[in-house]
Amino acid sequence: MGGTDIKAALFDASGAMLGLTRVPTPHRGVHTVDAVMQEIAELTAGFAADFPLVQPLAVGLIAPGIVDDDRGIGIHAANLQWADAPFKHLAEKRLGMPASFSHDVRAAGEAEFRLGAALPYRDVAVVVIGTGIAASLFIGGRPHSAGGYAGELGHSIVDPAGELCACGSTGCLETIASAGAIVRRYERATGSKMPGAKEIIERARNGDSEAQSIWNDALDALALSIAQLAAVLAPEAIVIGGGLAQAGDALLVPLRTRVDNLLSFQRLPVVVAASIGENAGLLGAALLARAAAVAAGMRP
Amino acid sequence: MGGTDIKAALFDASGAMLGLTRVPTPHRGVHTVDAVMQEIAELTAGFAADFPLVQPLAVGLIAPGIVDDDRGIGIHAANLQWADAPFKHLAEKRLGMPASFSHDVRAAGEAEFRLGAALPYRDVAVVVIGTGIAASLFIGGRPHSAGGYAGELGHSIVDPAGELCACGSTGCLETIASAGAIVRRYERATGSKMPGAKEIIERARNGDSEAQSIWNDALDALALSIAQLAAVLAPEAIVIGGGLAQAGDALLVPLRTRVDNLLSFQRLPVVVAASIGENAGLLGAALLARAAAVAAGMRP
Repeated sequence: MGGTDIKAALFDASGAMLGLTRVPTPHRGVHTVDAVMQEIAELTAGFAADFPLVQPLAVGLIAPGIVDDDRGIGIHAANLQWADAPFKHLAEKRLGMPASFSHDVRAAGEAEFRLGAALPYRDVAVVVIGTGIAASLFIGGRPHSAGGYAGELGHSIVDPAGELCACGSTGCLETIASAGAIVRRYERATGSKMPGAKEIIERARNGDSEAQSIWNDALDALALSIAQLAAVLAPEAIVIGGGLAQAGDALLVPLRTRVDNLLSFQRLPVVVAASIGENAGLLGAALLARAAAVAAGMRP
Repeated sequence: MGGTDIKAALFDASGAMLGLTRVPTPHRGVHTVDAVMQEIAELTAGFAADFPLVQPLAVGLIAPGIVDDDRGIGIHAANLQWADAPFKHLAEKRLGMPASFSHDVRAAGEAEFRLGAALPYRDVAVVVIGTGIAASLFIGGRPHSAGGYAGELGHSIVDPAGELCACGSTGCLETIASAGAIVRRYERATGSKMPGAKEIIERARNGDSEAQSIWNDALDALALSIAQLAAVLAPEAIVIGGGLAQAGDALLVPLRTRVDNLLSFQRLPVVVAASIGENAGLLGAALLARAAAVAAGMRP
């Protein structure tokens, strides 16, 4: 469930994605949770009609914001009007099967950790850079969520004298280094409308000095946050996903150099791209749904 | 084992500290490890003579630097000339009893976590601020050491355009906010020799504008690092120990205000003083020695 769309898919026992549907998220003020649950029930019924031979055993829901994965509660989401919404419980009651409810970025991290680029590591941060920035942390091989509050790397302050962030703080990493911030900063500096961060990185490569300055600031800020993670948590690897990761080596190569330059004796983390792609969140939700089914005594 | 002294104590089964001895650390170049082990053997023999009724079951060694607690190896220490020194193994062979070898700050953290101010929390950072700054992290109720590289909060960069740090990086937290940095900065600014950070904090309180500026910079930098921890790890509490913690409310009250001002939706950590005092490291070493005895099948 996102601020704009609800994306849904059916996964079979082999992990194959059998259907992918997208419906607009209903925004209904205090009735948003009810309306969202109604959409989920309809999506589930749609899968049952489209794939009559697949019997779903569990449902995995994910959302942005502050999510208490352990209790399956949506505590708060900036673009979705709910507070302390017990989605795991609501889904189990409504759909009559075990359910999980987790954070979208932690679910994507789960997919990268179980099946993707984070698989070789026990101490690893999966950093998703898109409109905002958030991380999924695995420490000693276990996810760390801190009741839903961990991993908000985008709201780690890198420039206390910087730009006001939507969260209310000043100089958060995502005001400088998210794809959204890169576009916003370039548009503000030049007055020209841009489709995305990709085009600005391209302009930087082609010598546009405004684009270069904004892209360099983004790389510096990201490298600083990664170096801080390296000093405190010492992850073996940083796996970067989300829209900005599509820049590939244009992101990874200068980022690695900067991180290396900032560190001294610390463990230098491997910095690599996520490998699962844009459906990592859905796949992670499926993995977490399977865990809920196992916890309920099923053998999916 | 520190750069200057080796401190040693005997603990009985009730946790009472029966003896406390301090000998200079022998610096013997490539023979430092041998010389240190000789001192440890003599200290142990001294305890046996002084406390004939106490039969030691295990020995717990601790040291600064990069320490691999799990394997009991001293990887590197700036002020001690060793590399990959297998202290746990050496102590077990030399003293004929189970041994542990851990990091001094992680041992102090262990004492605070098992018996002190960190006891109520599962996600907590024990931050020791003295000559340098280092943290002991507990995540989901378990210590996180990352092969010895975790917790180097003092070498988390807060000002990339700042002062060169002894570690080789620039603008590390401990170049601004350690007790050592506060003294160094004040002496450099005023030309007057100071006994410690305590006197500078006192001068700040009495209106000395140079002292105020340096103390404010230290508080700002500490608050920034704690806010970054809050965004990423979301600890329930930050427990502050070491020499600077003796400033008490002069440190804690303005630090809490600053952390609160920096954060928005994040979990606001409780910021409290460590409760065990200067022998937390020794007590932690004893707790880790006891764990080594239990692991060896003893019942201390």
